Amino acid sequence: MSAASQARRRLKPSELTIVAFEKGHFTSYSACGIPYWIGGHVKEREALIAREPAAFREQGIDVRMRHEVVEIDLARREVVARDLAAGGEVRESFDQLVYATGAVPITPPWARIDGGGVFGVQTLDDGSAIHAWLESDPQPRRAVVIGGGYIGVEMAEAMVRRGLEVTLLEKSPQPMSTVDPDMGARVAEAIRGLGIELHTDAHVEQIETKNGRVSAVVTPGGRLPADIVVLGLGVRPNTALAAAAGIPLGVTGGLRTDLQMRVIGVDGVWAAGDCVESTHRITGQPGHFPLGTHANKQGRVAGINIGGGYATFPGVIGTAVTKVCDLEVARTGLTEKEATKAGYVYVTASVDSTSRAGYYPGTKKMTVKLIAEKRTGVLLGGQIVGREEAAKRIDSLAIAVWNRMTVDEMTGLDLSYAPPFAPVWDPVLIAARKAADAVHAAG
Amino acid sequence: MSAASQARRRLKPSELTIVAFEKGHFTSYSACGIPYWIGGHVKEREALIAREPAAFREQGIDVRMRHEVVEIDLARREVVARDLAAGGEVRESFDQLVYATGAVPITPPWARIDGGGVFGVQTLDDGSAIHAWLESDPQPRRAVVIGGGYIGVEMAEAMVRRGLEVTLLEKSPQPMSTVDPDMGARVAEAIRGLGIELHTDAHVEQIETKNGRVSAVVTPGGRLPADIVVLGLGVRPNTALAAAAGIPLGVTGGLRTDLQMRVIGVDGVWAAGDCVESTHRITGQPGHFPLGTHANKQGRVAGINIGGGYATFPGVIGTAVTKVCDLEVARTGLTEKEATKAGYVYVTASVDSTSRAGYYPGTKKMTVKLIAEKRTGVLLGGQIVGREEAAKRIDSLAIAVWNRMTVDEMTGLDLSYAPPFAPVWDPVLIAARKAADAVHAAG
Repeated sequence: MSAASQARRRLKPSELTIVAFEKGHFTSYSACGIPYWIGGHVKEREALIAREPAAFREQGIDVRMRHEVVEIDLARREVVARDLAAGGEVRESFDQLVYATGAVPITPPWARIDGGGVFGVQTLDDGSAIHAWLESDPQPRRAVVIGGGYIGVEMAEAMVRRGLEVTLLEKSPQPMSTVDPDMGARVAEAIRGLGIELHTDAHVEQIETKNGRVSAVVTPGGRLPADIVVLGLGVRPNTALAAAAGIPLGVTGGLRTDLQMRVIGVDGVWAAGDCVESTHRITGQPGHFPLGTHANKQGRVAGINIGGGYATFPGVIGTAVTKVCDLEVARTGLTEKEATKAGYVYVTASVDSTSRAGYYPGTKKMTVKLIAEKRTGVLLGGQIVGREEAAKRIDSLAIAVWNRMTVDEMTGLDLSYAPPFAPVWDPVLIAARKAADAVHAAG
Repeated sequence: MSAASQARRRLKPSELTIVAFEKGHFTSYSACGIPYWIGGHVKEREALIAREPAAFREQGIDVRMRHEVVEIDLARREVVARDLAAGGEVRESFDQLVYATGAVPITPPWARIDGGGVFGVQTLDDGSAIHAWLESDPQPRRAVVIGGGYIGVEMAEAMVRRGLEVTLLEKSPQPMSTVDPDMGARVAEAIRGLGIELHTDAHVEQIETKNGRVSAVVTPGGRLPADIVVLGLGVRPNTALAAAAGIPLGVTGGLRTDLQMRVIGVDGVWAAGDCVESTHRITGQPGHFPLGTHANKQGRVAGINIGGGYATFPGVIGTAVTKVCDLEVARTGLTEKEATKAGYVYVTASVDSTSRAGYYPGTKKMTVKLIAEKRTGVLLGGQIVGREEAAKRIDSLAIAVWNRMTVDEMTGLDLSYAPPFAPVWDPVLIAARKAADAVHAAG
């Protein structure tokens, strides 16, 4: 819908007809907000919806809700859509096609059960289904969340807030494997602090049902009774339709695009969002980075270009942030594991500091970890774990990574200082000093 | 003391004797914390002290408290210090001299009264004097703060928190003239919201005393009764001693140094802190930027170099932050006025957004303003006014300014996103988009 809006801003309905097909019941909503709605931070589902279909229609965008596109015919320049509400199929021709199907939750064979109560968390329809299930009879009391990444942890906390007994299963030794184990250990602590039973190194063998409802998750360690199971195993690009149409896919299974979000090798087809693969600006490698902020940027870029403007999407550096109770966790650039995989030799520095001057009321502890290339001192990545006012500092590190700053140059950065906001040496600067020392010692 | 500590880390007492003279009663403290101690956020004066003289002495640094250096004899390589406690003078020879005398509050002739109750806020001794005065008999009830910059506004709020009736006089049309008037208007509102009587375009003609105590501040608009007067008129480099010794000063009255903090043109003399002038990295011009974080960095750099290491201070970009009640105000780079003065032709963009996703509890409004060079789109400066979790975003802008990013490139930045931390388009990104549009429209 970002693409549609941006194109419409530049071209009037007399210049460009825009038709949008949406399989579900909602359009233009915050999927990232679903755990907060389930958990009750957000009271109404409608709060997650940025724009209703009617608003787009007023703008001259023909939104067809509950229409699932089932075929793309590149030769005829047509799409075929099934009307899920009224039945039947429609064909619609196009000059330009924007492929924005998002991602689908990874669902192993054991998760495909014959019965209700197992949910992915990808669309607002998924969110609605979870919400309805939690209020169904008999009311679920025990939740098992499978996967300790962002969505898994956020959903586990949401279930606790709903009053359920929650078990979180993570196959790695630490949850939140998108940060280094030393940082992940803090997350594990926060998860347990919420009263969540956290099982690491945990594998699922089977999901059991009873009377058509989920009843347990079976692991080598035992049988965990469950009235609801949430899958947080990650997502994969939803590109089956593209593949069927003969559109080539990238190594990650996502659509490959140029800087303007044109699908490479197929004229007049654009792609944006969780269905594309993006270039990691530090490693230069393609990757799949499903995140609302990238999706929005990519959609905007595609729409501007379709509308005759000029915009590019420059790639990502892997910035992410989340919250577990009051623990803030953020990352950017490469973790140690990712740096090694990319071929970097690096040094690390971790510092414990505070979010405000030590003497200022409300100051909280925070840890900043930096990873720098050993030979050059170029910042490769950073991670922050802390409380209030901690995690958003990751943006400083993200912009430093983006600009390929060395940790040595970072020690001189003119960052904001006043006692309510930072110690006289901001934690980011202290970390840069320690990392620069490590680079010098290694050199 | 940063310089002393860093030099000592690298050279043992047998390799380098370090003597430090301090005029006052305290060393290594947070001057920026004084308003928070006066206002009661910080309960104990001792909380502001990072290290006591004894700690430095244990490290092998010979700290001479209450010793005022009254002469620098460059020919003999000696300093002359007066012992303010015991009386008498001592001479001390040196190979290397670090000049770190800080700044002195600007005190116009009318502020030099024959009586007590008029205070600058520069040293912890100043803070102690204010604290004592506020508890003296008769206990002050009415405060007049002269100057609506950072210290003036912080002290005015501190006085309110102490229960005084406070009037704040500012000679400009807006307080906080370090931000643009559109942002300063928000600060004025917050000041008045605290119950402070704010007089803008206000000039002081005279300060009256009665029985040896301040009694009123006289302005063209009338006579303001006052039991205490706080000067927040800014500071100037404390370089009288250097000038008397024949050390050349820069255009700002501060000491000029090279990148290693060596005073230019005088062998074996170093300088750091509020007594030096620094290069503004964007304008290339010298300026006086008295701020604890720069002072610390400069002292560290001088000490590393004296100790045989290598470090440089790369200059400043004018980042600053403060808080008025719960209003956070931050700036970096150049304001409109400063950009014009530097010779830039620019565009601006201001956006109103929120600190978190609009639907997330606790989200607060914030305004981000960007200033970009008209021809190139290079970010010249930014300002942020908001509530919780707003102002520290200035660091993102500071690092973008530092790296001379264009606002167009900034629109693609991979900043952290999750509903508790930002809308899907962070306010910084929305501002960059609007500024990029302004650059394109101007081009």
